Amino acid sequence: MTETERKPVAVVAFGGNAILRQGERGLIDEQVRNADRAVLPVVDLIEQGYALLMVHGNGPQVGNEMIRNEEASTKIPPAPLDVCDASTQGTMAYVIEKSLRNVLAQRRLAVNVASVVTMVRVDPKDPGFARPTKPIGPFFNAYRAQHLMEEHKWAMVEDAGRGWRKVVASPHPVEVLGVQAVRDLLDAGHAVIAGGGGGIPVAVSPGGSIVGVEAVIDKDFTASLLAREVRAHLFIILTAVDEIFIDFQKPTQRAVKVLTCDEAERYHREGQFPAGSMGPKVQAAIEFLRHGGREVIITSERRLPDALRGLGGSRIVHSGTAEDWGGQQVLFW
Amino acid sequence: MTETERKPVAVVAFGGNAILRQGERGLIDEQVRNADRAVLPVVDLIEQGYALLMVHGNGPQVGNEMIRNEEASTKIPPAPLDVCDASTQGTMAYVIEKSLRNVLAQRRLAVNVASVVTMVRVDPKDPGFARPTKPIGPFFNAYRAQHLMEEHKWAMVEDAGRGWRKVVASPHPVEVLGVQAVRDLLDAGHAVIAGGGGGIPVAVSPGGSIVGVEAVIDKDFTASLLAREVRAHLFIILTAVDEIFIDFQKPTQRAVKVLTCDEAERYHREGQFPAGSMGPKVQAAIEFLRHGGREVIITSERRLPDALRGLGGSRIVHSGTAEDWGGQQVLFW
Repeated sequence: MTETERKPVAVVAFGGNAILRQGERGLIDEQVRNADRAVLPVVDLIEQGYALLMVHGNGPQVGNEMIRNEEASTKIPPAPLDVCDASTQGTMAYVIEKSLRNVLAQRRLAVNVASVVTMVRVDPKDPGFARPTKPIGPFFNAYRAQHLMEEHKWAMVEDAGRGWRKVVASPHPVEVLGVQAVRDLLDAGHAVIAGGGGGIPVAVSPGGSIVGVEAVIDKDFTASLLAREVRAHLFIILTAVDEIFIDFQKPTQRAVKVLTCDEAERYHREGQFPAGSMGPKVQAAIEFLRHGGREVIITSERRLPDALRGLGGSRIVHSGTAEDWGGQQVLFW
Repeated sequence: MTETERKPVAVVAFGGNAILRQGERGLIDEQVRNADRAVLPVVDLIEQGYALLMVHGNGPQVGNEMIRNEEASTKIPPAPLDVCDASTQGTMAYVIEKSLRNVLAQRRLAVNVASVVTMVRVDPKDPGFARPTKPIGPFFNAYRAQHLMEEHKWAMVEDAGRGWRKVVASPHPVEVLGVQAVRDLLDAGHAVIAGGGGGIPVAVSPGGSIVGVEAVIDKDFTASLLAREVRAHLFIILTAVDEIFIDFQKPTQRAVKVLTCDEAERYHREGQFPAGSMGPKVQAAIEFLRHGGREVIITSERRLPDALRGLGGSRIVHSGTAEDWGGQQVLFW
């Protein structure tokens, strides 16, 4: 298929907490209802003529898998983290694909949907492995934590009186192993779900084999890599807030309407975007724009329909497109 | 792509016990080693020029998911059976795809691999739902069983002193929802893993929505349906025995070399193939051959390399191809 025949591709990244929400009980009925709502703006994109690639996170889901591991640990060997990731790719792709199929059918859109189990290669030399810092899963008491550290070689940290928690590396994604399948499916007209939870982390062993790795990959970085690999036109990162802020929680706080990549990079260097929340998203956006991408929207699920019509959300754009915004490098709402 | 350009498709169905073996501890290292071995004859098929579709079972794996559900049931809502199936599709596709990629790389075969999360539609009017008979998962004592039957509306049966066990419907697969993705991926040159565990069972609600269903689908029937839908040339069903037997465990026992579909149907009607083991496999073979398929091989993983060279295993063939075997309707080893 030639480039001109292809529909423009939109990549949408959203957190696992869009499906398994804080404060709910985690019942499957709740998850299905959340998925039914989460896919609505995504179907809008399909209606607008985009080929669609969805990348979901899996934070709360992988936490649940670790609780199930722990509770069943005297009967079933605990699944390592790569296998937990694979498990959540299966369950979440199922729930999301089902909702997507249902909404597409309701709107009489004849679009196929396909979900791909996705391994993502990381570099064993990634600095993340030298000092694991990403906390995941439940809290343990000191007695159990000692056992897990000694017997299962977990790295754990004590979290200010709340107990001990596993920490793992969060390496940068290097290669999406199934990217050709994603491309082929998009070209064949499927809406695709891939890279769930940032992908199942694998590395290439000294002997040349692919092996599972105890790590988590930030789904925004994997989505950014996928967006580059499928030459996406639009990369949407959904998060808890409607817009990016400059001078967040200061008297000078402003909500970003449009930001060029250069300006985003400058603000990022200045420390405007915290490492635990907006920082990686802005970084993922910059990586996409620095490698051929044109436009990123960062907004909330709720605000996305408006943002698509230019009425909300924050855009980060390739510097060359700043002229579309009156030559401004930064615009605030 | 035209029919003549397509490689012939081989569909290989094998049980979940090929990966999680009885007598082992179920450690991930064991599962990886089992998968490394299970994919070897499959790679032979790729080397011989076939496009490959693998369909795995998930019996022991879904049993483990149910144990994890039960052990964690005071902390995490137990996942219903459709979600357990989805989970095993993720984990098993990961383990199998990784092994397949590694062996392909070792043999320097430049073939992509893709694993698709697969829903399979069943008919809510399937007679299986009226009287669930398929036992799954662990045994429970009477006290817990009563709770599960009353609170969670499980159907359970008492199993000759070993305890109570959940029973579910095993309806026939009607439609593989993701079949177009499987076709497109095969056409694009990928080896494909799909329909794992017989597929995630779903039905269409009276309102027209796809909904998850508490059931298990026989993976051999789903593989047979997939084989028809992708117009496979060869359908291979791997099982515990090297050949099909006529008059099994009688003085007149004979191992089948070749059987036409007509003869297979006659023997099946005579009750030669038990319902719990070879019966569904022969039935799956017949359904494939009655809808355009040419050849089915039923054999063990160990015997498959020989069987592909005509030196072992049992073939069931379309009646029109009997002349390839000297006009014989039945040949024994």
